[in-house]
Amino acid sequence: MPGFSDTRRGPYLGSFSSNAIDRLTALFSRLPGLGKKSAGRLVYHILDADVSFARILGEELLAFHDAIKRCSRCGAYTESDPCPICSDSAREPVICVVERAQDVRIIEEFREFHGRFHVLGGLIAPLEGVSPDNLTIGDLLTRVREENIKEVILATNPTLEGDTTALYIQKVLKNTGVEITRLASGLPVGGDLEYADRLTLSRSFRGRIKL
Amino acid sequence: MPGFSDTRRGPYLGSFSSNAIDRLTALFSRLPGLGKKSAGRLVYHILDADVSFARILGEELLAFHDAIKRCSRCGAYTESDPCPICSDSAREPVICVVERAQDVRIIEEFREFHGRFHVLGGLIAPLEGVSPDNLTIGDLLTRVREENIKEVILATNPTLEGDTTALYIQKVLKNTGVEITRLASGLPVGGDLEYADRLTLSRSFRGRIKL
Repeated sequence: MPGFSDTRRGPYLGSFSSNAIDRLTALFSRLPGLGKKSAGRLVYHILDADVSFARILGEELLAFHDAIKRCSRCGAYTESDPCPICSDSAREPVICVVERAQDVRIIEEFREFHGRFHVLGGLIAPLEGVSPDNLTIGDLLTRVREENIKEVILATNPTLEGDTTALYIQKVLKNTGVEITRLASGLPVGGDLEYADRLTLSRSFRGRIKL
Repeated sequence: MPGFSDTRRGPYLGSFSSNAIDRLTALFSRLPGLGKKSAGRLVYHILDADVSFARILGEELLAFHDAIKRCSRCGAYTESDPCPICSDSAREPVICVVERAQDVRIIEEFREFHGRFHVLGGLIAPLEGVSPDNLTIGDLLTRVREENIKEVILATNPTLEGDTTALYIQKVLKNTGVEITRLASGLPVGGDLEYADRLTLSRSFRGRIKL
């Protein structure tokens, strides 16, 4: 049949060299959730789109790390230091302790917490070489004392590492007299008993509330 | 409870302003397959990654549209014009007609076709205002004559628009004497009769081959 070979070898792939496309595809596929195929789809979308889209996206990326710093007090990502939350004197003397800087945004968007934050920068995970010294637990202790904090809410994820870290922080803060709480764990709203795993079900029993 | 309001109103979201993060999230969420949440995940990944990643990605994007052109002969994306495929005298006088420029890459990666390509730039779709005049069908007719083409393979997708466009091109090329073929349509390899839709099943019957 003309145009077709009966072998899978041959130099034909190499002759179609689009290096800029390959490079951009490789870069996008290093981002979380993007495989080679979906990265390729983004690249061709950008090619088909107006040239201004690639230009604006490129410029934003070049300026990005200069625009965003970490707050020297709480560790959140911010454009000014200290961040708007730490600078806001109306914030109540309650610290919500989270694992990652993006958790601050998640809780801020939920709009019901009016206290301050503290970003740990990770969770205690001995197997991955993360010890308490790698986290900002010492800074948290200092802040609890200096900012006259009434309550520390431990909002690490309800996982093995999140629970271990919460337990460790609880011990560190024990002598400060601050109230220490942990986010409730249990069935998600709208969830179904049938699909709950054993551990979640067990926690929802232990944490049951009186009506 | 300290730190929490019992209302969902309040200026608290606004006080956490990370405009560079918002802008980059908005840009990423305009790409296909990326919602607001997954775009946000990319942005925080870039923040957490080494600063060089954002720099290299930004520079690639700024240079991208200048690096990639369309081949003036076949319409494929290329860094040189004519593209490496059109410049390759070893390519057989067979033209594979595809809808989009990225289809060229898909067929090249499969490494079994050693002919040339022709990108239509779309499919005939009267409801969306795409008529045959908006596509490169005239150029295809010229190429078939000038390049002494033996076969034209119509590789538009097996959809209503793809079939309509293939039928139209077949009529346009009828008097040139070139052999015209269409990619086979039927059950995907590894597929299951049970999950095949009616139209696919019908096509796999009509296109059945003698063993």
